[in-house]
Amino acid sequence: MKALVGEHIETLKPYVPGKPIEELERELGIEGSIKLASNENPLGPSPKATEAARALLTKGHIYPDGAAHRLRAAVAEFHGVSADEVITGNGSNEVLTIAVRTFCTADDEAVVSEYSFAAYPIICQAQGMTIRRAPMKDPLTFDLEAMAAAITPKTKIVFVANPNNPTGTYVPADELRAFLKAVPEEVVVVVDEAYHEYVQAEDYASAETMRDLRERLIICRTFSKCYGLAGIRAGYGIAPVELIDRMNRVREPFNVNILAQDAAAAALKDVEFVERSVRINEEGRAILEAGLEALGELGVSWIPSQTNFLLVKTPVEGVQVYDALLRKGVIVRPMAGYGLGEYVRISIGTPDEVRRCLASLGEVLPALLSREEA
Amino acid sequence: MKALVGEHIETLKPYVPGKPIEELERELGIEGSIKLASNENPLGPSPKATEAARALLTKGHIYPDGAAHRLRAAVAEFHGVSADEVITGNGSNEVLTIAVRTFCTADDEAVVSEYSFAAYPIICQAQGMTIRRAPMKDPLTFDLEAMAAAITPKTKIVFVANPNNPTGTYVPADELRAFLKAVPEEVVVVVDEAYHEYVQAEDYASAETMRDLRERLIICRTFSKCYGLAGIRAGYGIAPVELIDRMNRVREPFNVNILAQDAAAAALKDVEFVERSVRINEEGRAILEAGLEALGELGVSWIPSQTNFLLVKTPVEGVQVYDALLRKGVIVRPMAGYGLGEYVRISIGTPDEVRRCLASLGEVLPALLSREEA
Repeated sequence: MKALVGEHIETLKPYVPGKPIEELERELGIEGSIKLASNENPLGPSPKATEAARALLTKGHIYPDGAAHRLRAAVAEFHGVSADEVITGNGSNEVLTIAVRTFCTADDEAVVSEYSFAAYPIICQAQGMTIRRAPMKDPLTFDLEAMAAAITPKTKIVFVANPNNPTGTYVPADELRAFLKAVPEEVVVVVDEAYHEYVQAEDYASAETMRDLRERLIICRTFSKCYGLAGIRAGYGIAPVELIDRMNRVREPFNVNILAQDAAAAALKDVEFVERSVRINEEGRAILEAGLEALGELGVSWIPSQTNFLLVKTPVEGVQVYDALLRKGVIVRPMAGYGLGEYVRISIGTPDEVRRCLASLGEVLPALLSREEA
Repeated sequence: MKALVGEHIETLKPYVPGKPIEELERELGIEGSIKLASNENPLGPSPKATEAARALLTKGHIYPDGAAHRLRAAVAEFHGVSADEVITGNGSNEVLTIAVRTFCTADDEAVVSEYSFAAYPIICQAQGMTIRRAPMKDPLTFDLEAMAAAITPKTKIVFVANPNNPTGTYVPADELRAFLKAVPEEVVVVVDEAYHEYVQAEDYASAETMRDLRERLIICRTFSKCYGLAGIRAGYGIAPVELIDRMNRVREPFNVNILAQDAAAAALKDVEFVERSVRINEEGRAILEAGLEALGELGVSWIPSQTNFLLVKTPVEGVQVYDALLRKGVIVRPMAGYGLGEYVRISIGTPDEVRRCLASLGEVLPALLSREEA
């Protein structure tokens, strides 16, 4: 009998999201936990977005605007592009999926970086593609020259996360510009800027300033992080009209729900909220870094980050730290699935949440280390 | 230079949804329109669903439960199946897409019926597949024997909409049973029951009663119709664990938004709302049929329907009727895109909406007919 699925699906390991906080609490019989595992905005959703969504609750029976006119117009205005250069998705994850389904076939190859967002190779493998992984350079940073070198005549798509999840690192503008020029013109380059709003580095620039460097360039943004709409699901891509037109053929007709469309459009205009989110993130990161510095003698270190999380190197296996913190009601993300077994990823919560995480870390690490020695 | 997309994308014509009512009103400079074009529930969303969604608005910054535990548990309980036999989607449309992406490659063929839901061939073409279309039998009803005959050794998936959109017709239980037994075991059969709740025919049965007849069977249901959640986006599939497991590998991790998960679970328990929705649909259909009967001498007829819409044959091109009704603020759906140029599809609204539609139809048809004769 014909196999149920092809080898590419049979061997596909799906993305494993962090468990919902209620589920973890139920499993462990605890309550009052804090979740610093999914890089969510600790301030909650943009209040303007919440109000926009609330106004639509009684219209839940109406199909969403399939073309998302209002949201696309808001994005277009925000970026100074045409609405025809914008595609919206059920989170930016869906924009990535649509891009792969539109531009790639099983005969094509993708180039990704090691230690980058897990979704890229998963989506490409689901499409039956061959995936080439370029190495990173220290400290866990995209090596764009290595990525360019990994491109073959069969490469159809390349993914750059800037800044990158789960490392928190970024590529400076001049390196990105050189890369966009170096990649052969037939390759579609995706620059995923999910954490763009948090970046403070002065030598960073969004790829939106580099659109003249190549035709086949898709810039992705999300409302899940700094805008606080991870649950409501909205993201978008900016690309030349020809690319957007082809992607729209593959896009499901009602992919962005009715609440998300207006919530996201409102969030984009909630400048005060974004500023406040960035400020509290800076504050939390300073506290987290100072606390980790103090734990340095226990063998703790971290990778400098431009995002709302820190990738923290632990003196024992990260999953042990994750487990011990979990029992204290502090949920972080172990990184073994990313091949970073000696790390945990800690989202930057409110200052109080960060302090609680640090206190718990200070409590569990000595015990873990002495167990290790025994 | 390598082509941007393959021929299957270059020739793909996407689904064209009905325009949002506000957009049509803006274009025409009218207001107070009624939309009977998208088979939405005229009673609005299930109130229990709306309340469940409202309770989550302030949690919009939290990622949805990727595994949709609560919603899957509710669906499992409702159907008396295991939660491992349930996959949830951003509308049932996404479940269809996931099925094709999981089980099919560009080397496979799909069998669909003519005059069936447009999404099936679109999704399959996006996957690069070859599509075979079986003819219908009178009156615009699935011919399952013709569909079985269209299956070749390359067929990997078959779509049966029961009842069918846009014809409103259904296949009796014995015909569906015979088909499920006749289709070769390696073929995945999708039975799309989006309009299930509305069916009154006594010889109809859901495919959920036929799961013992074949392993590779996926039953799809939606919350967009009778539950009134088209805008919030939720649907599901029921299939054996092995199929669900493979589909979950391809499914995006946060495909169903946080509001939709709880809203849909609440809607499933809102038995009173579903009963009321079915009752008002029966009432509206009776009024619509009586009114169309009275217009019979103008050359109007309709296909008997088990759904919340009627496919209405018009004495002039359907798009002319659509245009004329639009100018009266009554939005129906022209069917030329389905190869049914002499029809319009009219959703069954509230009794008042149905009466207004009939009155407008009575006004515009004589003018259209005399123009035709002139």
